[in-house]
Amino acid sequence: MQRTIFNEDHEAFRASCAAFLAKHVEPNLEKYLEEKALPRDFWLAAGAEGFLGLEIPEEFGGAEADDFRFNAVLDEELSKLNAALASCVAIHTDIAVPYLVDLCTDEQKARWLPGCVTGEILTAIAMTEPGGGSDLAALKTTGVRDGDEWVINGSKTFITNGFSADLVITAVRTSPEKGAKGISLFAIEATDPGFSRGRKLDKVGQSEADTAELFFENVRLGDDRLIGEVDQGFIYMMQRLPQERISCSVSNVAHAKQILGETIQYAHDRQAFKQPIGSLQHNKFLLAELVTKIEVAETFVDAAVLAHTRGEATATDAAKAKWWSSEIQNDVLDHCVQLHGGYGYMNEYRVARAWRDARVSKIWAGSNEIMKELIGRDLGF
Amino acid sequence: MQRTIFNEDHEAFRASCAAFLAKHVEPNLEKYLEEKALPRDFWLAAGAEGFLGLEIPEEFGGAEADDFRFNAVLDEELSKLNAALASCVAIHTDIAVPYLVDLCTDEQKARWLPGCVTGEILTAIAMTEPGGGSDLAALKTTGVRDGDEWVINGSKTFITNGFSADLVITAVRTSPEKGAKGISLFAIEATDPGFSRGRKLDKVGQSEADTAELFFENVRLGDDRLIGEVDQGFIYMMQRLPQERISCSVSNVAHAKQILGETIQYAHDRQAFKQPIGSLQHNKFLLAELVTKIEVAETFVDAAVLAHTRGEATATDAAKAKWWSSEIQNDVLDHCVQLHGGYGYMNEYRVARAWRDARVSKIWAGSNEIMKELIGRDLGF
Amino acid sequence: MQRTIFNEDHEAFRASCAAFLAKHVEPNLEKYLEEKALPRDFWLAAGAEGFLGLEIPEEFGGAEADDFRFNAVLDEELSKLNAALASCVAIHTDIAVPYLVDLCTDEQKARWLPGCVTGEILTAIAMTEPGGGSDLAALKTTGVRDGDEWVINGSKTFITNGFSADLVITAVRTSPEKGAKGISLFAIEATDPGFSRGRKLDKVGQSEADTAELFFENVRLGDDRLIGEVDQGFIYMMQRLPQERISCSVSNVAHAKQILGETIQYAHDRQAFKQPIGSLQHNKFLLAELVTKIEVAETFVDAAVLAHTRGEATATDAAKAKWWSSEIQNDVLDHCVQLHGGYGYMNEYRVARAWRDARVSKIWAGSNEIMKELIGRDLGF
Amino acid sequence: MQRTIFNEDHEAFRASCAAFLAKHVEPNLEKYLEEKALPRDFWLAAGAEGFLGLEIPEEFGGAEADDFRFNAVLDEELSKLNAALASCVAIHTDIAVPYLVDLCTDEQKARWLPGCVTGEILTAIAMTEPGGGSDLAALKTTGVRDGDEWVINGSKTFITNGFSADLVITAVRTSPEKGAKGISLFAIEATDPGFSRGRKLDKVGQSEADTAELFFENVRLGDDRLIGEVDQGFIYMMQRLPQERISCSVSNVAHAKQILGETIQYAHDRQAFKQPIGSLQHNKFLLAELVTKIEVAETFVDAAVLAHTRGEATATDAAKAKWWSSEIQNDVLDHCVQLHGGYGYMNEYRVARAWRDARVSKIWAGSNEIMKELIGRDLGF
Repeated sequence: MQRTIFNEDHEAFRASCAAFLAKHVEPNLEKYLEEKALPRDFWLAAGAEGFLGLEIPEEFGGAEADDFRFNAVLDEELSKLNAALASCVAIHTDIAVPYLVDLCTDEQKARWLPGCVTGEILTAIAMTEPGGGSDLAALKTTGVRDGDEWVINGSKTFITNGFSADLVITAVRTSPEKGAKGISLFAIEATDPGFSRGRKLDKVGQSEADTAELFFENVRLGDDRLIGEVDQGFIYMMQRLPQERISCSVSNVAHAKQILGETIQYAHDRQAFKQPIGSLQHNKFLLAELVTKIEVAETFVDAAVLAHTRGEATATDAAKAKWWSSEIQNDVLDHCVQLHGGYGYMNEYRVARAWRDARVSKIWAGSNEIMKELIGRDLGF
Repeated sequence: MQRTIFNEDHEAFRASCAAFLAKHVEPNLEKYLEEKALPRDFWLAAGAEGFLGLEIPEEFGGAEADDFRFNAVLDEELSKLNAALASCVAIHTDIAVPYLVDLCTDEQKARWLPGCVTGEILTAIAMTEPGGGSDLAALKTTGVRDGDEWVINGSKTFITNGFSADLVITAVRTSPEKGAKGISLFAIEATDPGFSRGRKLDKVGQSEADTAELFFENVRLGDDRLIGEVDQGFIYMMQRLPQERISCSVSNVAHAKQILGETIQYAHDRQAFKQPIGSLQHNKFLLAELVTKIEVAETFVDAAVLAHTRGEATATDAAKAKWWSSEIQNDVLDHCVQLHGGYGYMNEYRVARAWRDARVSKIWAGSNEIMKELIGRDLGF
Repeated sequence: MQRTIFNEDHEAFRASCAAFLAKHVEPNLEKYLEEKALPRDFWLAAGAEGFLGLEIPEEFGGAEADDFRFNAVLDEELSKLNAALASCVAIHTDIAVPYLVDLCTDEQKARWLPGCVTGEILTAIAMTEPGGGSDLAALKTTGVRDGDEWVINGSKTFITNGFSADLVITAVRTSPEKGAKGISLFAIEATDPGFSRGRKLDKVGQSEADTAELFFENVRLGDDRLIGEVDQGFIYMMQRLPQERISCSVSNVAHAKQILGETIQYAHDRQAFKQPIGSLQHNKFLLAELVTKIEVAETFVDAAVLAHTRGEATATDAAKAKWWSSEIQNDVLDHCVQLHGGYGYMNEYRVARAWRDARVSKIWAGSNEIMKELIGRDLGF
Repeated sequence: MQRTIFNEDHEAFRASCAAFLAKHVEPNLEKYLEEKALPRDFWLAAGAEGFLGLEIPEEFGGAEADDFRFNAVLDEELSKLNAALASCVAIHTDIAVPYLVDLCTDEQKARWLPGCVTGEILTAIAMTEPGGGSDLAALKTTGVRDGDEWVINGSKTFITNGFSADLVITAVRTSPEKGAKGISLFAIEATDPGFSRGRKLDKVGQSEADTAELFFENVRLGDDRLIGEVDQGFIYMMQRLPQERISCSVSNVAHAKQILGETIQYAHDRQAFKQPIGSLQHNKFLLAELVTKIEVAETFVDAAVLAHTRGEATATDAAKAKWWSSEIQNDVLDHCVQLHGGYGYMNEYRVARAWRDARVSKIWAGSNEIMKELIGRDLGF
C-alpha cells in the first residue's frame, strides 16, 4: 500500500538523514557496536545537522518543526541502519527533550535546551527501578525535602543513554503515601555530587546503546531542578508516554521492514533445489504473509503518527500501536532469521543482530502486557 | 484510532442505509434465514432507496457516485446486520454490475442496467466450477461457435445469488487451447432455454444467501450476450477482482467489529466470580488484543478503500487486504464465541451465526492461499 | 508414532465397536442428525452389545472391565463416525454412570444400574445453569428440606442427553451460605412431578445430541434420591471431572484424526494446477504440521488414558489433556475445511459438520480458561 | 504427567551425570562461554566418568549400553545446565561416534574408538557447506581417486566441535553425476595435511560450542579413511539422522523445561502490583499454557526415545519430534524472557542466554522446513 502521510518536505528531510547516516554513521557502526555506545562525536555531528532539536523552539536553536512526522522520518532512517541508533536518539529527541520543552521554566530551558540541540547535552529518562518494572505506584527512589533542597536517594536501571547522558530526567517519590500520585520529576546532571552510574549493561541486543544502572546517593538539588510541579510527575509521564510509544512503533516497523526487504533480496539470490529459495512455495507464501504484516502495521502506525501530528492520538491509540508493532517486528524478524538458515544465527549477519535487537521492543516503553492493561481499561474493564 | 476516510456525505448515506435496514430488513431477517434467500421485496425496496445503483450512470437511473466509499458504507451497514446480506448485495453492486457498466454496449446497458438499479434484475457472477476452485486455466464450461450463435455447456457452483439471479455473468471457455487466455464472459439470463439451477446449497453459514449450482445445457446465445470481447474474460476478471476483494475486506472487518462490540457489552453485563467477565485479566487482555486487531485491520482496509477510490489500489493491495481481514475476522469471532461460553454455541445467539458466516471469507473471492500466491508473485517469486 | 497403550483385547473390542457402528448406526446417521437426537433404538442396540456397562459391576449386568482403555476405544470409534455420538454416549458411560457406581446405595444401584446397562435408562448430568457457566460457587438451583423430603427448584441448561434422559444427576444447592461446599447431587427421574424440559437446543453443531434446558419446579424427592452425602457434591464432581475431561480428550483427538485422514485422501484425489493439491508445497507442509499436531496430542492423551487406567492421572493432567486436545482439534479441523475449499463450507461434507461439531470442545467440560485456572493453581498461583 | 520411560538404572545414571556437572562443569561454565569452547579437560573428565562411550562396545572401553535412554538422560542433564554443552557432547556421542561403531572396520575401530571413550579423540560431523544448507544433492566437496588415494577438496561450515575436533566425519562427493547417491564419508584427522579450520564462528548463542568452518585442500587419504562403502554416504546419513534428531528433541525439551521451571520460581518471587507476578491472571494462564506445552512435547519425545530404544522409531517420527520440540522450546523461552521483563534482556540472566541458545534448534539437524518436507513425503506427497 502506498504510504500517504509524508509530503515533499518530509522526504527531503529523509534524504538528508540518509545522507548523514551513510557518511558519518555507517562507516563507524561496527565501532559503536564494539564500544557499546554512541560516541559524543556522533551526537555533535547529528546536532550540527539539526537532527536533535526538531521539537525545540527556534530561540534555543531548535527547528521548532511542530510536526511529529519529521521525528518519524528520523526514527525510520536510524532504524533502517540499526535498531539502537534509533532508540538512543529517540530517547533524547522524542522522549526526554519534550519534558524540558513543555514543562521547564525559562531559566531551565536556557540552561539545557541549547545543548540538547547541539548534542553537547545528551539526555536520558529514568523511571524503571531494579525489581520495579511497570509498577510506578511502587516507585522507591525518594526525594526528601531538607531546607531549600531535595535529597534524592535510590537507583534506576535499564536506562538508555544512561552511561553517557549529561542530564537525566528522573522520577522520584516525593510523597510517600500517595502512590503514583506522589511522584515528581527532577533534572539530575551527571556532575551532581552523589550521582553515579554502573557499568554498561550487557544486553541481548541493542549493542550500541549504552544502557546503564544509575545511583543516587544523597544527591542534593534545588527547586531549579524540579521539572514542572511537585507530585505531578505521574501525570506528566502519562501525557508524554503516547509520543514515546508512537516513536517506538515507528522504529519497530521501519526496522523490520528494512530487514525483510534485505531478506527478500536474499531469497532471490540464494539458490536451493535449483531455484531461488523464495520461489519455493512455502517461502513464497511466508514472504507474502510477512510483507502483508509489515504493510498492515505500517499503515496503522502511519495513522497514529498522523493523528499524533494533529494532536489527536490517544494514549490507547499509542498503546495499540506499540504492542502490535513490536509483535509484528519480532515475528517478522524471527522468520527472516529462519529464511537465512544457519547464516541467520551468525552475528555478522545483520538479520541475526536485528533479531536480537528487536526482542526488547516487547518489553520496554511499558511492556506489551501493560499496553493491554491500558487498552482494557479504555474498554471500561 | 479515529477513522478518517469518510466525510459528511458518506455519513449521511450511512444513516439512510441504517434506517432502511432497521425498518425494512431487521424485522424480516429471521424469515430470510429460514428461507435461505433474500426475497425480491428486499431487492426492490433496496433499489427504491437507491442503494443498488451506486456505480451505475445516471442515464440508466443510477447514482453514478464514482466514489467507492459509498459502496463501502453500504457494505459495512449490511455486514453489521448480518454477513450474507452484505455478500449478496455486494455481488450485485460491487462485483457483477461493474462488468456491465464498464464493458457493455449501449444496447446491453439499456437492456440490463435500469433493472439492476431498481432491483428488478438481480445479478450474479459465475466463475467457479465443480471440482475447479481457483484454477481458472482449467475452466471447463465451453462456448462453441455455431453459426451466429454461441452454444454454452457446463456448470458452475457456489454461486451467490445463484438461485434467484436474473442475469448471470458467466465465464466460458471459448478457445480450448488457450488456458486462462481463452475465456470469454457471457450474460446469461435466467429465462434462456437450457439454463437451470440446482437447489439452494446447504452451507455452514451465510444462510440468507441463496447460493446455488447452475447448469448450462446447450444454452444458445447471440453476440449481444457477449460481454466485452472474445477471449478477454480473464483480463476483465483480473481487472475487477481487486474491487471484489476490497469489498469483501470492508465487510469482513465491519462484521467482526460489530460482533466484537456486542461481545464487549456482553463482557460488561455477564458476571462470573462476582465481577463482569471482561474484568477478569485474561479476558481483559484478550479483548484489548481483539480491539487492536480490528482497528489495525480497519485502518488498512480503509487505506485500501481510499486508494481504490483514487484508482490507485493495486491487485496486490487488494489481495493483502482480503486475506488479512478474513483471518482477523475469523480469529476475532472465534474468541467472541469463547467469551460467550455455552451461549456462543447456540444458533440463536448472533455470535454463533456470525462465527459460521465468517468462515467462508477465507475461502471465497480467491482463497487466502491464492492471495498469497499473488502477493508472492508481486515480490518476483 | 506407533501407539502403544492398547493390547489385543482392546483391539478386539474396537473391532466389535466398529462393526456395530457400521451396521446399526452409520445407515441411520442422517436421520439422527435431522431429528436432533439419538433414538431409544440406538441405546438399546448399544446396550445389547454390551457397550453401555463397561464400568458397571457384573452383578448389575455390566462388564466391570475396570480398564478405562475400553471406554477410550469406544469413544474413539464413536468419534470417528460423528462427534456427538461420542459425547452422548460418554455422558452416559464415562461421566454420569460412574457417580451411580461409586456413590449409590445398593438399593439405588439395583434400581438404576441394570437399565443403564441395557439402555433402558439413559442418564445425563446437570451442573450448568443459565447465566452460570463455570462458577459452581454461584449455583442457584436449590434443594430445601421439607419434612422427609427435598424440594428442588431451579433450572439447568446445555444438558447433553437432556431431552431424552430418564435419570438426571443434578447439582443442587442444599446449603445456601456454603458456596461450592453447599452442593448436593440428586438423581432426578424424568417422571418426577415438577420436572420438565425445554425444547432441543439449536446448536452450531453436535446435531445428533439432544441438548436441552431442564426445569425443576417443586420436585419433591426422598433421601433415596440423594447421591452420596449431603453437601459433598462439589467434591464428588471434582473427583470425577478428570475422567470426563480425559474422555473428552480421547474424542477430540480421534475426531480430528479421522477427518484429517479423510482430508489427506482428498488432497491426493483433488487436482489443481495439474497436480494433487497435497503436493503443492504449502499444503504439503501444512499437512505435515497437522499430522504432527495430531500425533503429539494423541501421544499425550494416550499417556493420560494409561495414567488414568493406573489410577494415577491427576486433575491437572486431565485439565492439560482437555484444553490442549480441544485446541488442536479445532485448529486441525479449521485447516481441513480450508483444504476442501468451497466444499468445506457445505454441510453435506463431513469436514464442514466436523468443524461445527468441534467448536464446543473448547467450551464444555470446564472451559479451556477454567482448565488454565486449574493448572495455574497447581503451580501455586 | 508423570514420565514413565526411565527405570532405576537410568535415574542412577542421571544422578551421576548431575553430580559430575555440578562438580566439574558448573564452576567453569562462565569460562567456557568466554572462551567459546569446551576445553580438553572437560572432555577428558567426561570420558573418565564413562559418559562418552555409551554406545561403544566394551572391547574398546565403552559402556555398550545399547539403550538410548542413557544417552537421553545425559542430554537432558547437560541441557539443563546449558544448551551448547548438550549439543557439543551429543555431536560426539549420539551423532558422530555411531558412524564409527556401525560402519568401521576392526582396524578403524581400534584406531579411533578407545580415544572417543576417553575424550582424547573428539569427533565432529561435517555435512553442511557454505551456501549449501539442506540440499545434499548439491554437495560440492569432492573426493577424487588418484592412485590408491582420495584427494579431498572443499569446505564445510557451521561445524559444531569444528575448532577442536580430532576426527571429522566428512561428507564428500565421490561420484560427480550421481547427486545424493554419489556421496561418501571419510574420517579426516585434524593432523592430516591440507586440513585447516577457520576461526570460531561468532554465533547468536550456543557460545560454549566451538563452531567453525573447515577447509580441505588436497587432503590425501587412503581407503582406511573411508567409512563404510563408496557412494553409500547418503544412505548412512539418512539412517543415522533419526538418532540425531531425537537427541536434539530431548535436549530441546529438557532445556526449555529447566528454564521454565526457573521462570515459575521467578514468578513466585517477583512482586508487582502487590502480588507475585505469577498470580496475575494473564501470567497464570500463560504459565499454565507453557507447562502444558512442555509436558505434551516431553511426552511425545519420550515416546520417540522409547521407540528408538526398541529400534522402531521411523525417520518421520524423528522429524516430527525435532520440528515440534524446537518450536515449543523457542515459544516457551520467548515467553520466559517476557516474564522476566527487562532482566530477560540481560545476558547475565540465564533466560536471556537460553533464548539466544535455542534459536538454532529450528535451523540445524535439518531445518524445520526440511522436517516438514520429509513428513509430507511420508504422506505420499
